[in-house]
Amino acid sequence: MKAVIYKGPYRVAVEDVPEPGIEQPGDALVRITTSNICGSDLHMYEGRTSVEEGKVLGHENMGIVEEVGSGVNWIRRGDRVSVPFNIACGTCRNCVAGWTSFCLRTNPTEGVDGAAYGYAQMGPYQGGQAEYLRVPFADFNLLVLPPGPDFERDFTMLSDIFPTGYHGAELAGVGPGDTVAVFGAGPVGLLAAHSSYLRGASRVFVADLEPDRLALAERFGATPVSIGRGDAAAQIMEATSGAGVDRGIEAVGYQAHDSDGVEHPEMVLDELVSCVRTTGGIGVVGVYVPQDPQAPTDGAKDGRIGFDFGTLFQKGQHMGTGQCPVKRYNETLRDLIIAGKATPSLLVSHEVPLDQAAEAYEKFDKRVEGYTKVLLHPASA
Amino acid sequence: MKAVIYKGPYRVAVEDVPEPGIEQPGDALVRITTSNICGSDLHMYEGRTSVEEGKVLGHENMGIVEEVGSGVNWIRRGDRVSVPFNIACGTCRNCVAGWTSFCLRTNPTEGVDGAAYGYAQMGPYQGGQAEYLRVPFADFNLLVLPPGPDFERDFTMLSDIFPTGYHGAELAGVGPGDTVAVFGAGPVGLLAAHSSYLRGASRVFVADLEPDRLALAERFGATPVSIGRGDAAAQIMEATSGAGVDRGIEAVGYQAHDSDGVEHPEMVLDELVSCVRTTGGIGVVGVYVPQDPQAPTDGAKDGRIGFDFGTLFQKGQHMGTGQCPVKRYNETLRDLIIAGKATPSLLVSHEVPLDQAAEAYEKFDKRVEGYTKVLLHPASA
Amino acid sequence: MKAVIYKGPYRVAVEDVPEPGIEQPGDALVRITTSNICGSDLHMYEGRTSVEEGKVLGHENMGIVEEVGSGVNWIRRGDRVSVPFNIACGTCRNCVAGWTSFCLRTNPTEGVDGAAYGYAQMGPYQGGQAEYLRVPFADFNLLVLPPGPDFERDFTMLSDIFPTGYHGAELAGVGPGDTVAVFGAGPVGLLAAHSSYLRGASRVFVADLEPDRLALAERFGATPVSIGRGDAAAQIMEATSGAGVDRGIEAVGYQAHDSDGVEHPEMVLDELVSCVRTTGGIGVVGVYVPQDPQAPTDGAKDGRIGFDFGTLFQKGQHMGTGQCPVKRYNETLRDLIIAGKATPSLLVSHEVPLDQAAEAYEKFDKRVEGYTKVLLHPASA
Amino acid sequence: MKAVIYKGPYRVAVEDVPEPGIEQPGDALVRITTSNICGSDLHMYEGRTSVEEGKVLGHENMGIVEEVGSGVNWIRRGDRVSVPFNIACGTCRNCVAGWTSFCLRTNPTEGVDGAAYGYAQMGPYQGGQAEYLRVPFADFNLLVLPPGPDFERDFTMLSDIFPTGYHGAELAGVGPGDTVAVFGAGPVGLLAAHSSYLRGASRVFVADLEPDRLALAERFGATPVSIGRGDAAAQIMEATSGAGVDRGIEAVGYQAHDSDGVEHPEMVLDELVSCVRTTGGIGVVGVYVPQDPQAPTDGAKDGRIGFDFGTLFQKGQHMGTGQCPVKRYNETLRDLIIAGKATPSLLVSHEVPLDQAAEAYEKFDKRVEGYTKVLLHPASA
Repeated sequence: MKAVIYKGPYRVAVEDVPEPGIEQPGDALVRITTSNICGSDLHMYEGRTSVEEGKVLGHENMGIVEEVGSGVNWIRRGDRVSVPFNIACGTCRNCVAGWTSFCLRTNPTEGVDGAAYGYAQMGPYQGGQAEYLRVPFADFNLLVLPPGPDFERDFTMLSDIFPTGYHGAELAGVGPGDTVAVFGAGPVGLLAAHSSYLRGASRVFVADLEPDRLALAERFGATPVSIGRGDAAAQIMEATSGAGVDRGIEAVGYQAHDSDGVEHPEMVLDELVSCVRTTGGIGVVGVYVPQDPQAPTDGAKDGRIGFDFGTLFQKGQHMGTGQCPVKRYNETLRDLIIAGKATPSLLVSHEVPLDQAAEAYEKFDKRVEGYTKVLLHPASA
Repeated sequence: MKAVIYKGPYRVAVEDVPEPGIEQPGDALVRITTSNICGSDLHMYEGRTSVEEGKVLGHENMGIVEEVGSGVNWIRRGDRVSVPFNIACGTCRNCVAGWTSFCLRTNPTEGVDGAAYGYAQMGPYQGGQAEYLRVPFADFNLLVLPPGPDFERDFTMLSDIFPTGYHGAELAGVGPGDTVAVFGAGPVGLLAAHSSYLRGASRVFVADLEPDRLALAERFGATPVSIGRGDAAAQIMEATSGAGVDRGIEAVGYQAHDSDGVEHPEMVLDELVSCVRTTGGIGVVGVYVPQDPQAPTDGAKDGRIGFDFGTLFQKGQHMGTGQCPVKRYNETLRDLIIAGKATPSLLVSHEVPLDQAAEAYEKFDKRVEGYTKVLLHPASA
Repeated sequence: MKAVIYKGPYRVAVEDVPEPGIEQPGDALVRITTSNICGSDLHMYEGRTSVEEGKVLGHENMGIVEEVGSGVNWIRRGDRVSVPFNIACGTCRNCVAGWTSFCLRTNPTEGVDGAAYGYAQMGPYQGGQAEYLRVPFADFNLLVLPPGPDFERDFTMLSDIFPTGYHGAELAGVGPGDTVAVFGAGPVGLLAAHSSYLRGASRVFVADLEPDRLALAERFGATPVSIGRGDAAAQIMEATSGAGVDRGIEAVGYQAHDSDGVEHPEMVLDELVSCVRTTGGIGVVGVYVPQDPQAPTDGAKDGRIGFDFGTLFQKGQHMGTGQCPVKRYNETLRDLIIAGKATPSLLVSHEVPLDQAAEAYEKFDKRVEGYTKVLLHPASA
Repeated sequence: MKAVIYKGPYRVAVEDVPEPGIEQPGDALVRITTSNICGSDLHMYEGRTSVEEGKVLGHENMGIVEEVGSGVNWIRRGDRVSVPFNIACGTCRNCVAGWTSFCLRTNPTEGVDGAAYGYAQMGPYQGGQAEYLRVPFADFNLLVLPPGPDFERDFTMLSDIFPTGYHGAELAGVGPGDTVAVFGAGPVGLLAAHSSYLRGASRVFVADLEPDRLALAERFGATPVSIGRGDAAAQIMEATSGAGVDRGIEAVGYQAHDSDGVEHPEMVLDELVSCVRTTGGIGVVGVYVPQDPQAPTDGAKDGRIGFDFGTLFQKGQHMGTGQCPVKRYNETLRDLIIAGKATPSLLVSHEVPLDQAAEAYEKFDKRVEGYTKVLLHPASA
């Protein structure tokens, strides 16, 4: 089958690889109809991770079940499904507690809990930017969707970024009436804003450098805050008459940089501490890593982010972090899409056949204007 | 009346000062029976804060109501009361939400929410290491205790350190069956351990350098972890068969130091990130500050604590911080004391008349062996 | 001043009464701009309560602060305010816990916690269907609104029925993605439906007998269920493919009756038990009473409602009940109105001068078509 | 193998039946070491349910894994395990939400969610009062215990009654400092009291008719309330100076009767409504049923329990109900047993070989003095 292969820094290619099959009784084989390129695919694309060459990329997957193993009881051939990026056993302590992003069993990597498809350090699983994908523990992991073609562009957001944005709102504690500041108007930040409104927020600010992304934020009903025009936290403090916002969401991560492109991994955390009010909550879904050899400071190379912890303490803020347990939210978000309340597809900018993946990666990585979110469709879809 | 006055670094004195009176309709005047010296009094004693000379110290107060203002409806002369260290208006947004430690109205200091008695930056309020104390918004702030002399040594912990230790457990999310690591076996850490057991923890570790404090931790039923014997987090990981603990509590603060006395403000946070399991919670009640001119690094001087945030994110941990809203917990803890379930007085090491306060400060600050907690009693008590 | 006086069953009159004044240091005097007639005013109007003749009615009040007592610190003359129907001391255990509807101090009636303006058994407080109203503990009880005339018809819902509808959703546990069944399309039921959507519900059913009320439910985005067309629970089960709804809200109360007008106080509870799924939640904000001499059965006369508790247990449902603590929600709802997210005024059917109150009561009580909600405006407004 | 067979009202026998085997890839076969007789076994024994003759009874089971199916990944032959009475699929909506007692898939009985071993209406599963038991979805359902013989009498409470008692405390919302009233000093009530203390309760009352059970309640640290001495709620109100308790737990069920043996299914609910304070919580784990042909009133025959709902509403109480999802609590309770904090075995009165089961049923059913809890051990144990 055709699949997108990592070939080294700044190089991916669509190549022929062996088709996966059922390996364990709990497996399902999914024929991919849509697989998205994610911002975190770009971390790997840029060679900033330890991902091995030859790996099939792609962890934002959906499709049709082609085959199931003998131990699969409820998922059936022909089911239309969304595949959470987390690979979870369903029975360990973390999975049972709803923390499928920290499954204690599916990732053999020393010291790391949680597995994913086609992802650095997240276990030996191939990705889904391909014609077929093997899904372990299918009864537990797969979310069944209504049959047919409807909402494909919305449902494809259920495998990662819509739940991840929602998780940011959950970690921050966003509830009815809250004011919220989201930093980062990439796909996750935009869907964190969308999720905040779905949870009843009264007003959501979205801060970013890029005008096209800020325009998208407005389409989701948010108030754009242009970092180019000065300190974002200060703008938000002014817009809230000095009160600050109730909740803040970090959707940028360790590669945060200023308008000159210089990285400051503590920059966004500082902004959040500054503009979130006393006792407020901060949700961090932008990725931070324990080791980043290309980081700007010695501390940051070892994951040490010297942000303003003294003020965070003095303001009594709380903070939640980490990768999203997709299964905790995807059923709710599916139902809100079907009910017409949620429309994450607003941010889709491009849909291309799988064999144009290399070009799409290149343009998305260079942030060619308008490249906010790219969907790949295998020819067999 | 007699009162303990701050006279500059390493100097306090018991002097005559004017007796306070009722200033507002909501005030009460409390005749102090017991006022404790707190670890954070030592921050001021050591000249490490901006507290003004001439201030009456003391925020851990209890006594008998001597007089009430015309707007006080429920508190009555003669009531035996515990005085939370927080001075709260009772009607602002934070107070109504239970965050009396971040009252929006009682502290006129620019940029700081929350007020306290006899405390740097926490407003123009005199402390209670004195014969009398003025208490604003008495109906809201005072906790009524059973009359008589019983439980004085336990109840005196209700004004600050018992609720503060309990708040650490709350912020960390300690619940039935949990394993917990507490860093710091000072009074707050010990009562965080005690509180963790009251909330149903199955096993609590307490890490510290000092053998006498570790012995006290054992009296509270905890497993002592001697930092002198090697890396505390590693010892805890081994004792939990590599699983780590469910919850961690920081009860040390920005002056954390190694066995040579060298300060490392990020040290304890690093230990907690290391020994708390994925998805676990960390409660920070040890104090961190936005400005610390005597800190060991430029970052730390500005409150920037470069701890291992990359691993915290990778483990999906969450963290709560800040000063304790005493009123949220003191009624519960009072009832547990009366029921015989809680005995915070176990950690009291010394009781002295108020006029021996200077000597007690000096010995407590030098950590003369056995000086874990000192109670002061005015002669009028 | 002019005020609406209860004169006995089916009789109210607008008469001259003495103007209230400041009685306690914490009081404020509010000049009423809008006071609504509530469904529970009709219980009193119909003579079905023990309310005394001569009482000024009206517990849904808003206006402008005219004067404050010496112990009022933050509320100021000229503030535009919403007055929660609960009269709360702000410092008892229930008030501090956010349960202002069960204040332990403001109601001298034996065995009843919680007080209200102009209401049977809820203490000796006059109502606000009048030119002026005395408000105790003003700093705690009053909600400040933006100055000016904007949103008057929305803000007037903040004193009772909007928070009460929201409380129904809270007690039932309505969250993002949930399906909800509301029984009763009176003002509280309609705003329970509105609140459910504000909290992220995916689909809300509203069941009632009256076509005009069901039409209003549709304006709030809900799916109407006509009780006249057959069993409402069965219709909801069918519309959910047999799954039932996640949450149910009771907004009818003990006078529930069938299409022939025969009362069945257990009818709505039975419907909810039947159509809410296993493990689901039920919020009861329709009023039930311990004594109802006019009830149809001996049990019901003593508050014994023989609903299908066996099935409730077998389905593992949970249930919350009772009068709404308005203060817990009114700030959130105010902010959602200002942000344009909430528009409770959709259900206002009539606005009349205070001196037409008698006619308005009569027509509202007879449910003259279109009489869903009546606002009264004193001439001085 | 030998097994306890239901033979009709008041008749059980130990007979030879075919040994169970692995039927599905997810199954495990457990060699039973201990299986308890439960109070709900007596409902079946007395012929008060629809359980079919020939059924193997026993849903409180523990033992050693003898064999596992091909789809079992983590449970291994030789593991010592506790078997929750709930049979849960682990992947339906209710199971994923932690409500294994309402699994949507394992019980084919029309209209009933949730399955169990050897139990009326809970599906076609044989019980474990036998030498061997087949356990479906073993990876999800089984709780692994430390190997060896330790704590057998405590661990055997993990399959049902200890979690069920704990669930009562959870549904009632018992937390640190709370006062609690438990009605019923049978095994579930006693362990509800024990659980309340584990969750930090300050004082627990236990009400019952039987002196030997009340004596056991005292051994668990509770205050006994003798129903024989007068109204239990009144005694509790007096002991709390009229305040009532914060939380109430129903551990009796629909067969509640007075000291003359006359059944009053609404009696205990009435007592709880009466002695729980305003805004308090009630947890119902005593069983109520939709159909009870032998009930004393027509309403009760159809599950209609006419308790004082009017007062429940006026007091703003909330109530949770239903069978316990054992898996939600059994790991926590296991760890508290190992840590020496929990000792449910205190209530064990008898341990007998399996072949004496008939006599044990008879004596337990007649409540022969001292028969509080009987453990059965197969000869192969």
